[in-house]
Amino acid sequence: MSLTPEQQAEIDALRASPAQTLRVVSPGMEAHLYRAYPVLDHGFVRVIDYMGDDAAICQAARVSYGKGTKSVQNDEGLIRYLMRHWHSTPFEMCEIKLHVKLPVFVARQWIRHRTANVNEYSARYSILDREFYIPEPDALAAQSVINNQGRGEALSGREAERVLEYLKGDAARAYDHYEEMISDEGQQGLARELARMNLPANIYTQWYWKVDLHNLLHFLRLRADAHAQYEIRVYADEICKLVADWVPAAYSAFEDYRMGGANLSAKALECIRQMLKGAEVTQESSGMSKGEWREFRALLE
Amino acid sequence: MSLTPEQQAEIDALRASPAQTLRVVSPGMEAHLYRAYPVLDHGFVRVIDYMGDDAAICQAARVSYGKGTKSVQNDEGLIRYLMRHWHSTPFEMCEIKLHVKLPVFVARQWIRHRTANVNEYSARYSILDREFYIPEPDALAAQSVINNQGRGEALSGREAERVLEYLKGDAARAYDHYEEMISDEGQQGLARELARMNLPANIYTQWYWKVDLHNLLHFLRLRADAHAQYEIRVYADEICKLVADWVPAAYSAFEDYRMGGANLSAKALECIRQMLKGAEVTQESSGMSKGEWREFRALLE
Amino acid sequence: MSLTPEQQAEIDALRASPAQTLRVVSPGMEAHLYRAYPVLDHGFVRVIDYMGDDAAICQAARVSYGKGTKSVQNDEGLIRYLMRHWHSTPFEMCEIKLHVKLPVFVARQWIRHRTANVNEYSARYSILDREFYIPEPDALAAQSVINNQGRGEALSGREAERVLEYLKGDAARAYDHYEEMISDEGQQGLARELARMNLPANIYTQWYWKVDLHNLLHFLRLRADAHAQYEIRVYADEICKLVADWVPAAYSAFEDYRMGGANLSAKALECIRQMLKGAEVTQESSGMSKGEWREFRALLE
Amino acid sequence: MSLTPEQQAEIDALRASPAQTLRVVSPGMEAHLYRAYPVLDHGFVRVIDYMGDDAAICQAARVSYGKGTKSVQNDEGLIRYLMRHWHSTPFEMCEIKLHVKLPVFVARQWIRHRTANVNEYSARYSILDREFYIPEPDALAAQSVINNQGRGEALSGREAERVLEYLKGDAARAYDHYEEMISDEGQQGLARELARMNLPANIYTQWYWKVDLHNLLHFLRLRADAHAQYEIRVYADEICKLVADWVPAAYSAFEDYRMGGANLSAKALECIRQMLKGAEVTQESSGMSKGEWREFRALLE
Repeated sequence: MSLTPEQQAEIDALRASPAQTLRVVSPGMEAHLYRAYPVLDHGFVRVIDYMGDDAAICQAARVSYGKGTKSVQNDEGLIRYLMRHWHSTPFEMCEIKLHVKLPVFVARQWIRHRTANVNEYSARYSILDREFYIPEPDALAAQSVINNQGRGEALSGREAERVLEYLKGDAARAYDHYEEMISDEGQQGLARELARMNLPANIYTQWYWKVDLHNLLHFLRLRADAHAQYEIRVYADEICKLVADWVPAAYSAFEDYRMGGANLSAKALECIRQMLKGAEVTQESSGMSKGEWREFRALLE
Repeated sequence: MSLTPEQQAEIDALRASPAQTLRVVSPGMEAHLYRAYPVLDHGFVRVIDYMGDDAAICQAARVSYGKGTKSVQNDEGLIRYLMRHWHSTPFEMCEIKLHVKLPVFVARQWIRHRTANVNEYSARYSILDREFYIPEPDALAAQSVINNQGRGEALSGREAERVLEYLKGDAARAYDHYEEMISDEGQQGLARELARMNLPANIYTQWYWKVDLHNLLHFLRLRADAHAQYEIRVYADEICKLVADWVPAAYSAFEDYRMGGANLSAKALECIRQMLKGAEVTQESSGMSKGEWREFRALLE
Repeated sequence: MSLTPEQQAEIDALRASPAQTLRVVSPGMEAHLYRAYPVLDHGFVRVIDYMGDDAAICQAARVSYGKGTKSVQNDEGLIRYLMRHWHSTPFEMCEIKLHVKLPVFVARQWIRHRTANVNEYSARYSILDREFYIPEPDALAAQSVINNQGRGEALSGREAERVLEYLKGDAARAYDHYEEMISDEGQQGLARELARMNLPANIYTQWYWKVDLHNLLHFLRLRADAHAQYEIRVYADEICKLVADWVPAAYSAFEDYRMGGANLSAKALECIRQMLKGAEVTQESSGMSKGEWREFRALLE
Repeated sequence: MSLTPEQQAEIDALRASPAQTLRVVSPGMEAHLYRAYPVLDHGFVRVIDYMGDDAAICQAARVSYGKGTKSVQNDEGLIRYLMRHWHSTPFEMCEIKLHVKLPVFVARQWIRHRTANVNEYSARYSILDREFYIPEPDALAAQSVINNQGRGEALSGREAERVLEYLKGDAARAYDHYEEMISDEGQQGLARELARMNLPANIYTQWYWKVDLHNLLHFLRLRADAHAQYEIRVYADEICKLVADWVPAAYSAFEDYRMGGANLSAKALECIRQMLKGAEVTQESSGMSKGEWREFRALLE
């Protein structure tokens, strides 16, 4: 990660100036505010602001149920109930604003989550920094031979070396030419909005990303999942830690019902019922396809 | 308005317990937090939480432009620029959560603004209170004779009296029967989710409503407008005051560009150009319809 | 249901005038177009327009996978795969527009589904018809004694009679007064936007509702569910039949994975793994709450 | 543009197979269905499906106003009224699905319009084609000296040549290396999801993009505007032509009220009122900033 001394000084200054508020405060989150947590080689995630906590989720739920505002003792049970029954609106009552620095190809996946607010660094307006994501050796993975959309083992030897040479060399050359094209020394200088098209998808961008807790958890369920691309999963993993400190009860329920849980089809449920009765069930008798059956079996082991 | 002593005590307690935070604080908004501002005869609006301030809008805009984080002196100018050019994403970086008590027919208009989070009191689950909106004499308006969707002068005399009798009498009877139907004394008691259907649209409901500043301003533009129904406009007016204290620069730009401004068509702009050159322009020569021409003339006077 | 002869004639005329199109056509849906299917005592659902079919879902999925456009034989398998893995974007590529007539208290639940387009009959502008939902005897249910948000058995005898008297009598009186208040005979006449507040929540309204297939299926999952209120469930059930004819493969996958399926928590999965190994599992050892354990056991029976 | 003979044959086949439908048909749009209209050097826009027409907009509006379904003569006036008064919901009742091939840096701007459905070609799953956007000489513009976010004149001479050399050479090399890295001949082959990061932002991608007419017009207002980047504006311009044939009345109202119109602030309106009375108004007396005054003056000329 590359925070300039200037940026670090700004973070320190912000963290040194507490103010009084009448709002709900999450002590777990206050400890994280503004701090930049490194992700990948030059990226980071940091919390700029937040609204609400576990109690705010319950408070909103209790508006619906028409009972006062608080009854601290059962908050955890209520949150588990809400999560289990997909009562999502109370989770929407919490909000978080993150500052993220990330490679463009990760940003392109991330932005597909539409229910969020975004302000991204504009390469029409400003000049991008010379920072590119270059994978660590163990992240330099081969194409999976069983999954068109996945990875196999890490490359090794000469092949790994060559890939790194290409990635580094092409990025460096592309950036040199970018700089040269936009330079106005002794020439007109190409418009920034055009010059940026020469830059590869591993260049870093940054944005402010604001989202409510329900939609954030949905993002985390998909992106902290084992099937997500590694380069976005490391961001999701980092955010998971922040959320666990911000709304511990909600995060714990999320882990049980979403991250660790599974969705079973009617066919799968029927198979389980048969199996619990001691019946033999096979892929053929299950009515599932081979792929589905494989996933089902894996779940039970 | 009818806050119970219990509710008032809770508000007082919340206002008496400041906490420390590292987040951005809006002093103007802190003064309003939790307080219930009366609207109509039993309704209110109060701020439960907020995120961001004028500086947060600028900070987000500057992420896009790639320049540090702060330069306080020009914030107002930057905000005006953003508002003028419909750069709406920085305004989405502020968020507010309101607790609103309002008649059901107002709630039905309000909910049509889809980009917001809502937790409403559930009449499936809980019993509604005996509170109905009964208009003040000067709000008891006749149907407009020129506008199918508007009001004329206030009713008077016997007609006004009769309307009030009907509204009060029907509401009271409907509520008596509601109570009687759900009672389980000496009978089974009708399900709440069914009994509520007997209640008229002027009964009060309440909800938590969370929205970002951009969408809130859009709501206010439509609902604080002179063409909005009076009963929702008074809520919008009250919220305007809160926003003015929360984000003074954004609110001031909103007043100039949205509330006080107007959208002119290509035809209207061409008319103005001709008129400024001293040419005579008529409805016929303008290419506008009669209604459009009337609106256009009214704008210039 | 109450279609006027005029409305029926219009439907007949629309159905008698086929046109040529180059678009994808769903024969199953064409058979339903414009026809009004009765729901409750005065309501209906009818399809006004639609876009796409099962093949269109696959076509969109194949854009992502980068392979031509068609390979008809495997469409069903692909659709099951998409549904199983929550790849929701291809389902968003189909769209439907419905005309629905429904009681206001049902409309209030329905509108909470935000990702849809709506044009509702305006009682500010126009006069509502004298049509109220009055439950059939077997839908006149008592409050559940185990579920705050549910129904028990049907009321009977004198209690049922009294409820019907109240519902009918109050609705009739409220509507009489509504008519009297807005009348301009011998008086000014109250504004429609005010007079409507006297009408109870079982009066009928109508709207055009347009939604994509993904969001429609989400709506159906919640509203065709056994826990949904009966009065919205009958609409959802009717729409299910339409969807089954429109996109048979998608609907079949939806039935298997969503309607008939279940979401299991990490704890529940672990219990099943233990049980399949022959271990005894109890509520205490499961780590679940009593309510959760009850739901879990019910699922396995 | 590069349609393969296979793709062209498919388009021809689709256009040769009309079917019967009872749905509303827009003859103007039928003529465009499936045809690929070239944009930039390798891109295109084509309509895959649509729902609704001008009459469907009016039909939805009339549901709100409670009057039958049709009265063809006044449709144009009604549409102008709806557009003028920002009654946007009836325009949401039309929908369009486009297939677009576009450079990645254009796709990144486009996707910021969140209220739409998208299925994009997946470079995790499939291999991207060797196609890059290389600007025509007159689009090879210098950075604007007055606008940080704009273009000046076209580059010329040796500078233009060098820019083209860089863009072409870097793209070719990056793609050669991409191919080499993913190759599994004599090596493991890098995962596609990683190899794609070496490709520059002018490589082409493609997607299905589905959006309602209201949100499409919003997109066009921003992207067919003179301030939009040329490379997205040419797509917007092409879509404008399609919309003009699809919903001629709505498009004509859009041109008058949105594209050719302007938003005036309260201050600007007051200036115009003064000027029409013959008063002298200056930047100082207007209360506007210099930039704002310049924009205001330009509007009146």
